[in-house]
Amino acid sequence: MSSRRSPADFLPILRWSRQYRVSLFQEDALAAVIVGIIIIPQALAYAMIAGMSPVTGLYASIFALAVYALFGSSNTLAVGPVAVISLMTAAALGKFGFSSPAEYAAAALLLAFLSGAILFIMGLARLGIMANFLSQPVISAFITASCLIIAAGQLKHFFGIDSSGTVLLEIIASIVQSLRATNPITFCIGLAAVGFLVWSRTGLAEFLQRTGASEKFALSITRTSPLLLIGITSLLVWAFQLDTRGVRLLGEVPSGLPVFTIPVFSVEAMRSLLGSALLIAIIGFVESISVAQSLAARRRERIDVDQELLALGASNIAVSFAGGFPVAGSFSRSVVNFEAGAATPAAGLLTAGLIAVVAMYFTPLLYWLPEVTLAAIILVSVLAIVDFSVFRKSWAYSRADFVAASLTLSLTLLVGVEFGIAAGVIFSILIHLYKTSKPHVAVVGRVAGTEHFRNINRHKVETFENLLSIRIDESLYFANTRYLEEMLFNLVAEKPKLEHVILMCTAVNEIDMSALDTLQSINDTLLEHGIKLHLSEVKGPIMDRLTNTEFFQTLSGNYYLSHNQAVEDLNLREAPLSGL
Amino acid sequence: MSSRRSPADFLPILRWSRQYRVSLFQEDALAAVIVGIIIIPQALAYAMIAGMSPVTGLYASIFALAVYALFGSSNTLAVGPVAVISLMTAAALGKFGFSSPAEYAAAALLLAFLSGAILFIMGLARLGIMANFLSQPVISAFITASCLIIAAGQLKHFFGIDSSGTVLLEIIASIVQSLRATNPITFCIGLAAVGFLVWSRTGLAEFLQRTGASEKFALSITRTSPLLLIGITSLLVWAFQLDTRGVRLLGEVPSGLPVFTIPVFSVEAMRSLLGSALLIAIIGFVESISVAQSLAARRRERIDVDQELLALGASNIAVSFAGGFPVAGSFSRSVVNFEAGAATPAAGLLTAGLIAVVAMYFTPLLYWLPEVTLAAIILVSVLAIVDFSVFRKSWAYSRADFVAASLTLSLTLLVGVEFGIAAGVIFSILIHLYKTSKPHVAVVGRVAGTEHFRNINRHKVETFENLLSIRIDESLYFANTRYLEEMLFNLVAEKPKLEHVILMCTAVNEIDMSALDTLQSINDTLLEHGIKLHLSEVKGPIMDRLTNTEFFQTLSGNYYLSHNQAVEDLNLREAPLSGL
Repeated sequence: MSSRRSPADFLPILRWSRQYRVSLFQEDALAAVIVGIIIIPQALAYAMIAGMSPVTGLYASIFALAVYALFGSSNTLAVGPVAVISLMTAAALGKFGFSSPAEYAAAALLLAFLSGAILFIMGLARLGIMANFLSQPVISAFITASCLIIAAGQLKHFFGIDSSGTVLLEIIASIVQSLRATNPITFCIGLAAVGFLVWSRTGLAEFLQRTGASEKFALSITRTSPLLLIGITSLLVWAFQLDTRGVRLLGEVPSGLPVFTIPVFSVEAMRSLLGSALLIAIIGFVESISVAQSLAARRRERIDVDQELLALGASNIAVSFAGGFPVAGSFSRSVVNFEAGAATPAAGLLTAGLIAVVAMYFTPLLYWLPEVTLAAIILVSVLAIVDFSVFRKSWAYSRADFVAASLTLSLTLLVGVEFGIAAGVIFSILIHLYKTSKPHVAVVGRVAGTEHFRNINRHKVETFENLLSIRIDESLYFANTRYLEEMLFNLVAEKPKLEHVILMCTAVNEIDMSALDTLQSINDTLLEHGIKLHLSEVKGPIMDRLTNTEFFQTLSGNYYLSHNQAVEDLNLREAPLSGL
Repeated sequence: MSSRRSPADFLPILRWSRQYRVSLFQEDALAAVIVGIIIIPQALAYAMIAGMSPVTGLYASIFALAVYALFGSSNTLAVGPVAVISLMTAAALGKFGFSSPAEYAAAALLLAFLSGAILFIMGLARLGIMANFLSQPVISAFITASCLIIAAGQLKHFFGIDSSGTVLLEIIASIVQSLRATNPITFCIGLAAVGFLVWSRTGLAEFLQRTGASEKFALSITRTSPLLLIGITSLLVWAFQLDTRGVRLLGEVPSGLPVFTIPVFSVEAMRSLLGSALLIAIIGFVESISVAQSLAARRRERIDVDQELLALGASNIAVSFAGGFPVAGSFSRSVVNFEAGAATPAAGLLTAGLIAVVAMYFTPLLYWLPEVTLAAIILVSVLAIVDFSVFRKSWAYSRADFVAASLTLSLTLLVGVEFGIAAGVIFSILIHLYKTSKPHVAVVGRVAGTEHFRNINRHKVETFENLLSIRIDESLYFANTRYLEEMLFNLVAEKPKLEHVILMCTAVNEIDMSALDTLQSINDTLLEHGIKLHLSEVKGPIMDRLTNTEFFQTLSGNYYLSHNQAVEDLNLREAPLSGL
C-alpha cells in the first residue's frame, strides 16, 4: 500500500468521474434500478428493526449511498440500513427508557453521528488494520445470533401483537404472553407472504429456468418478489379493508425529502452512547470491508481499507444530519449490485436518486402496506443468512475457535447483542495470547562434523556439560517472557556443571521492554550462580536496539554472530560429550 | 511444569511440615520477628489507605499470613495489606456513596471475598499464565502512579486537615482548599518523622556501618525505625497532651481477635464490585508472583504459579471472613523475610501469631499514636517505590512500550486507578496485535544449482514467470490474514503470466479458523483467474489438521513436502528466467 496521498486518493470520485462514459452509465443505471427495487422494502424493514419510523430507512439510504459514492473506493459496495446494525442500534437505544419517539430518534441520529465520527477519525489515523482484530468465527457466530434475534423479533408482526426486547428469551416470553391476542387474518397474510418469498427463491427460480428463461431473468424475477409482495398485500388490504379487521398497516408515511436535522451534542448523551457507537462502527466496518474486498478481488480491483473507513464514516455522519440511523455496507445488496454490473460508484448515486423519487412521490402508496409484509421480508432474508457451519467446521478444525464462536452465539442470544460481541472479541484475543504465551523452545546441539545446530530431542547431536544452547522459536514479548524464564531455570537446574547459557535468537523477530527486563533478570540471576549468559545470531534490527541497553552492557557473557562460533569459543578446553 | 497433582501439591504444607526441624524453626522464628516489626506499622497504615479502621489491617495480616502458609508454594512471600491494593480498594469503594463506615467495611470484605474467589477459581482452572498478559512497563507505570496518588493522599495528615478522592487533581484541590486550617504541631511532627525515616534509611545506616557495625545490624536498626517512630511520637503526644492542641490520634483501637464476619452476598453488590475485584485480583497476583519468583530464583527454588493463585485466593477469602480487605504479596516485606532467612512458610505462621498477640494485648498503646506518624511511614515507603526509569528506558528502546507506560501513568493519575490500569492493559495488547498484524512475507527464488530458496530482494536467485513462491514468516491467525490476502493479490497483479502460487509454510506454527477461511477464499479467487494455489513444507501437526478441511479438499493445486519439488514439478516445461 503506497502512502502518498493526492486529493483523488481522498475523494476517489475525482478519479473515476473523469473517465466516465455513456457505456459505463448504461451499466450503472441498470444496476441502480435493480438495487433500488431491492433496497426500498429492505430500507423500510430495517428502519423498523432499528425502532425507527419506516421512512427514515429511505432517508438513510439516500444519504448513505450518495455520500459513499463520493468517498468510497469500492465500485460495488451498497451502503445503507442493514439488519445487524439496525439490531445493534435497537439494542443500544433500548437500554434507555426514552419517553417519546422523538427522543429515541434523536438518540439514533446521535449514534449514527458518533459511529461515523469514530470511523472517520480511524480513517484519518489510517487504522484500517484494526478490522483484523475480529476473528472470523466470532463475527460469523455474532451475525447468526443477530439474525436469530431479528427473526424472533418479527414474530410479533405475524401474530399482530406487541413484544419487546433485543434478548432472545425476553422476546419469546413477551410473545408467548400475548399469543391469545393473535389476529388470524394477519397471521394468514404473514404465512402466505413467507411462503411466496421462499417459493420465489427456490421453486419459482427453478421453474422459470426449466421453462427456458435465462438464469439472469429468473434471478431478477426473484429479486423483484419482495416489491411484488408489497404491491399484492397492499392491494389486498385496500380492497377488503382489512385494516378494519385488525391488520396493522404502515399508515401515513410522510412525502418529501428529509428535513435537515442536527444531532444534539449533549456531552452526557455522547458519553452514554460512545461504547455502543464504537461497537457499531467496528462491526459495520468489518462487514462492509469483507464484502467490498471479496467483490473487488473477483474483478481484480483494489480496495483501500483506510479510504473505506473515511467513506463509511462520512456516510454515517451524513445520515445523522438527515434524521437517519447507523448504516453500513449491505452484503446482499452489494452482491446484487456487483452481479447487475455496477461499474463505478455512480451506480450508488443513481440508486440514491431513485429512492429520492420514491420518497417524494410514492410514499402515500405505502399507507396500505401491512406491517406483516415487511416482517415476512425481514424473516426470510435474515434466516437466509443464518449459518451454523462455523460450529461444525471449527469443532473439527480448532476447538479454541469453536469455543469463541459458541460463547459469542450464546451470550449474544441470552445476555445481549453488545455483551455477546464484546465477549467474543475479548475471548478470541485472550486465546491468541494464551497460544503464544508458551513459545517453542528447543535445546540444541551440534550435528557432529558440521556447524549446524539441531533440537537434541530430534537429532543425534553433540552436547557439552558446561554449555546449554537454547533456541527460541518465537518473538519475545510480555505474554511469553515469564514462561521463557521458568523454562530456562528448569533447564539450568538439570545441569549441575553448567557455566554458560547461549540463547540462539535466529527466530526472534521482536524483543519488547518486558522481555528485555526478563532477560536482564535472567542475566543477573544466572550470574549469582556463576553462570554466564551469551547471545548468538540476533537479527540486525534487534541488535541495533539492544546495543545501547543496560541489559546488553551488563551482559555477563558475549555476543556471537554465529552459534557455532559461540560454542567453539566457550568450549575450547573441553572435549565434546558423546552424541545423544 | 508437571501436571500430576497429589494432595501435597494442593496443600504444600503437607510436604514441608514433614521435614520440619528445630534448625529451620530457629531461622523462621528470627525472620518472623523481624517481619512482624515491619508489618505492624504497615498494616495499620495500609488499612487507612484502604479507608478502613487501622485494626482491620492487623486482622487482615493475621489471616492472610496464616492461610498463605497452608497453601503457598513460596517459602518467603509475605502476604497481607499492600499499598497499591489498598489504594485500588479505596478507589473501587469510593465510587459508591456509602452512608456509614459499617457499610463501607462490609463492601470491602465482599471485595476481598470476590477477589479471592476469582483467584481461587483461576487457580483451579490453572490459568496462572494469565499473569503474563500484563506488560512490564504498564505494571511499572501503574505502580508509580499509584504510589504518587497514595503519597498525595497522605499530605492531609501532615496539615491535619481533611481531603478526599483517589484522583490526583481531586486530592490536590481538596488539600489546597483547606490549607488554612493547617495544624502547625501536626505539621512539625510530620516533617520530623519524615526526616527521621529518611535519615535512618540513609545517614543512620551509613553511620552505623562506619562505626564498625555489620551491614546486617545496620539494616535491622533501619527496619525497626518505623516502630521506634511510633513509640517516640506516641510518647510525645501522651507527655505533652498534644491531642488537646489539635493533633489527631488513632484513638480507641479494639483489643482482641477479629469477630467472624460473613460477607453479605447481595447479587446487586456482587455485580457492581465484580469488575473492581477482577482488577484487584490480577494486579495483586502479578505483583505477588513477580516477587515470589524473583526471590525463589535467587535460591534455586521453584514457584508453582497455579498454586500461588490458589494460595492468594484462599488468603483473600479468609481475610473476608475476618472483617478485612483485599491483600496480596508485599514486595518490601517479602524481601525482608527472604533476607532475614525465612526457610519455610512456617515463618509466615509465626508472624501471624506475633501479630495476633499484638492485636490481643497491645492495641491500647496505639491510642496515643498520631495519624501523622502513620502518614509519614506511608509517604516514605511509597516514595521509595516511585520509579520513572521505565520511561527513560522505554523511550530509548521501544516507543510502543513508552506510549503504553505514559498512557497508564497519566490516565491513572488523572482519570482514575481502575481506568488507568485497564487502559494500559488494553493498549499494550492492541499494540501487540498491531505489530503481528503485518507478518514478514518474502517472495523467494531458487539459489541457482541448489535446492535452497531465498528472499529475491536479498539474494541472487532464479525466478519463473508462471510461478510465484511466497514464504510466510509468521503463524497465520485472525489479525494478519487480511494483510496476507491483500499482499498476495498485489503480488499476483504484478505477474500477468502467472499460473501457480506456492505458499512455503516453513515458519507457520499455527493456522486458525480465520486464516483457514482466508486461504479458502484466496484459493477460490485465484481459481477464478485460472491460477492454482499450492502448499509446500507445511509442519506436521498443522498438516494433520488441514487434511480433513474443505479448504484442503478443494485446493486447486497440490501439496508438496519440499518447495524445490513443487517448483520442479510445476515448471517442467519452462526454462528458468535469468537470476535477479
